[in-house]
Amino acid sequence: MALTVVGSIAFDSVKTPFGERERMLGGTAVHFSLAASFFTEVRPVGPVGEDFGDAELAVLTDRGVVVDDVERVTGGKSFFWRGRYEYDLNVAHTEDTQLGVFGEFEPKLSAASKDAEVLFLANIQPDLQRQVRAQCNGARFCALDSMNLWIDTAKDSLLAAIAEVDCVIVNDAEIRQLTAESSLARAARAVMERGPRAVVAKQGEYGAALFTKEGFFALPGFPLEDVRDPTGAGDSFAGGFLGYIDSHEGELDEACLRRAMGYGTVLASFNVEDFGTERVARLSREEIDARFRQLGEMTRFDALPAG
Amino acid sequence: MALTVVGSIAFDSVKTPFGERERMLGGTAVHFSLAASFFTEVRPVGPVGEDFGDAELAVLTDRGVVVDDVERVTGGKSFFWRGRYEYDLNVAHTEDTQLGVFGEFEPKLSAASKDAEVLFLANIQPDLQRQVRAQCNGARFCALDSMNLWIDTAKDSLLAAIAEVDCVIVNDAEIRQLTAESSLARAARAVMERGPRAVVAKQGEYGAALFTKEGFFALPGFPLEDVRDPTGAGDSFAGGFLGYIDSHEGELDEACLRRAMGYGTVLASFNVEDFGTERVARLSREEIDARFRQLGEMTRFDALPAG
Repeated sequence: MALTVVGSIAFDSVKTPFGERERMLGGTAVHFSLAASFFTEVRPVGPVGEDFGDAELAVLTDRGVVVDDVERVTGGKSFFWRGRYEYDLNVAHTEDTQLGVFGEFEPKLSAASKDAEVLFLANIQPDLQRQVRAQCNGARFCALDSMNLWIDTAKDSLLAAIAEVDCVIVNDAEIRQLTAESSLARAARAVMERGPRAVVAKQGEYGAALFTKEGFFALPGFPLEDVRDPTGAGDSFAGGFLGYIDSHEGELDEACLRRAMGYGTVLASFNVEDFGTERVARLSREEIDARFRQLGEMTRFDALPAG
Repeated sequence: MALTVVGSIAFDSVKTPFGERERMLGGTAVHFSLAASFFTEVRPVGPVGEDFGDAELAVLTDRGVVVDDVERVTGGKSFFWRGRYEYDLNVAHTEDTQLGVFGEFEPKLSAASKDAEVLFLANIQPDLQRQVRAQCNGARFCALDSMNLWIDTAKDSLLAAIAEVDCVIVNDAEIRQLTAESSLARAARAVMERGPRAVVAKQGEYGAALFTKEGFFALPGFPLEDVRDPTGAGDSFAGGFLGYIDSHEGELDEACLRRAMGYGTVLASFNVEDFGTERVARLSREEIDARFRQLGEMTRFDALPAG
C-alpha cells in the first residue's frame, strides 16, 4: 500500500450562501490526501510558500499523511484561490487565482513517492503529469484528472498523458469537450480507446458514473440536507476512490472499482458538509463505513421480474 | 388494474442535431399512455382538434390504449409545439406553442376513467388537476406533474393539488423553485410535509431520485450511445413508473416504488432513442425486461466491508 498524489496545496478564500472563510487550507492534493488517508498511506507532492505554516501541515500529519514531499519554496507564496458560490451551489465563480510557487512547479519525487503502487495525477499541466507518470513506473494503477484549460491549450499533451494511465477521473462536461461527443457513453468509449481501462465521469450533485470495458456503473450523490461548501468535492471523491483501491489487496476487478466508487461518493459527501477540510479532518472511519452501507441501501432494488 | 391520465395530446415539430420531424404525434398523455401500455390498461383523457386523424389514434389503439375519452372538438385544432434541441440535448428551445383546443380544456371523464385505481395528472392547470382528482376518489395511488409556469402563476392552487395526491413527479429544478430550498433533500421533505408520501425528482440524463418517508433511492439514466430526441422522456418515465404500479397487485411499498423507478427509467431510455413515439410504438415487453435487468446489474455493488 503506497499512494502518491501530485497536485496543488493551496489557500482558499470561499464564500457560499451558508458562510465564508478566509485563506483556509485547500488544494487538490490536500483534499485528495485527507480523503485517502482513511484507507492507506498517502504522499502528496506539491509546493508551498513561506506563508504555509505548521498549523496547515498539522491538518495533514494529524491524519497520518506523509508530508516529506511537500516542498517549501523559500521566498515564495502558496497557491491562492478566491471563489464564491451562488445559491445553486453548482454555480461557482472564480474571483482571484494567484499561482505563486505552483506556477513554477517541477515535481520532485522522493524514492518513497516514486515507489507508489497507486498514483493520482491531479489537475496540473499534462506534460508535468507525464513526467511524474514516467517516474512511477511500478504503479499498478494510475489515474489522472484534468480541466478545460488543458483541453483548450495542451490537448495533444493531455491525450498523450491519458494514453499512459489506467483511469481518467474528470467532470462529465470535460469528457464531452475532450472527445467532441455529446453522448457520455460514446465519449467514455473514445477515451478508453486511447488506453485507459476505466473512465469516471464526475457529475457534481448527481454523483458519478464509471465506464469500463466490462460495463457501466453509476452512483447518485449522497443526499444531504446541508451542503456548506462544495470546494474539493471532486478531489475528495478521487481520494476515497483511489485510497480504497490502494488498500485493496486482491485484483482490481469490476467489483473493486464499484466499491471504490462508493467510497469516493461517501468521502465527497462528507467533504461538502463543511468548509474546506473542516469536516473530513474530524471524520472517522466508522462514519465512512456507516454511510457506505447507507449508500448500498439507497441504490438497491429488486430487478427480478415481479408482478 | 385501471390507469387514467389527463394531459395534452399534441402535434410536435422537433429538430435535434440528429434529425427532424414535422407534426408528429406527441403530448404528455400520449407519451405516458404508450409507456404505461406495456403494464396495464390506460385511458388518456384529453382534447384533440379536427386535424387529429385515424393514423394518430391508431398509434395508441395499436398498443391497446383505450381512447374513449380522447375528445375530438369540432372546428378545433390540436395542441401544437415546435422546438429544437442544441448539440447538448439537455438544452431545449421552444419556438412555437399553439394551445388550440387544449386552451379551453375542461376534462370530461367517463365512468370508466373515473374508476381509475391509479391516476396521473399530467402537467395542466392545477385547478383542473384538482377537479379531476375529486372525480377519481377511489384511486389507490395518484400522482401529478407540474411546471415552472404554474409555480409562477398559480402556486396556491398547485400547493392545494399537491396536498391531494400521493406522489409528485417533477423536474428537480421545479421542486427547488416550488419550495425555495436549494437542497433537493430538503425540498422533497418540504413537499412531503404537505401530504404526498413520495416525491420523484426527474434529473434528465442523470436519471431520477425517489424520496419517501422510508428513505432515498436513485437511479442513473440508462446509458445510451445514441439519443435522437429527448421529447417526452419525462412523460415516458411517468408512464413506466405508474404503469408498473397499477399492475402491481400487492402493497405499494418501498420495494414496489423502487422497481417502478426502474421501469420508468427503462421506458424513458427507449423513448429518446428515436423521434416522438417511434421507438416506443415498436417496443416489446421482452426488450423492456431485458433492459430492466441490465439496469439492475449497472447499479449493483457490494456494500459489505471488504479489504
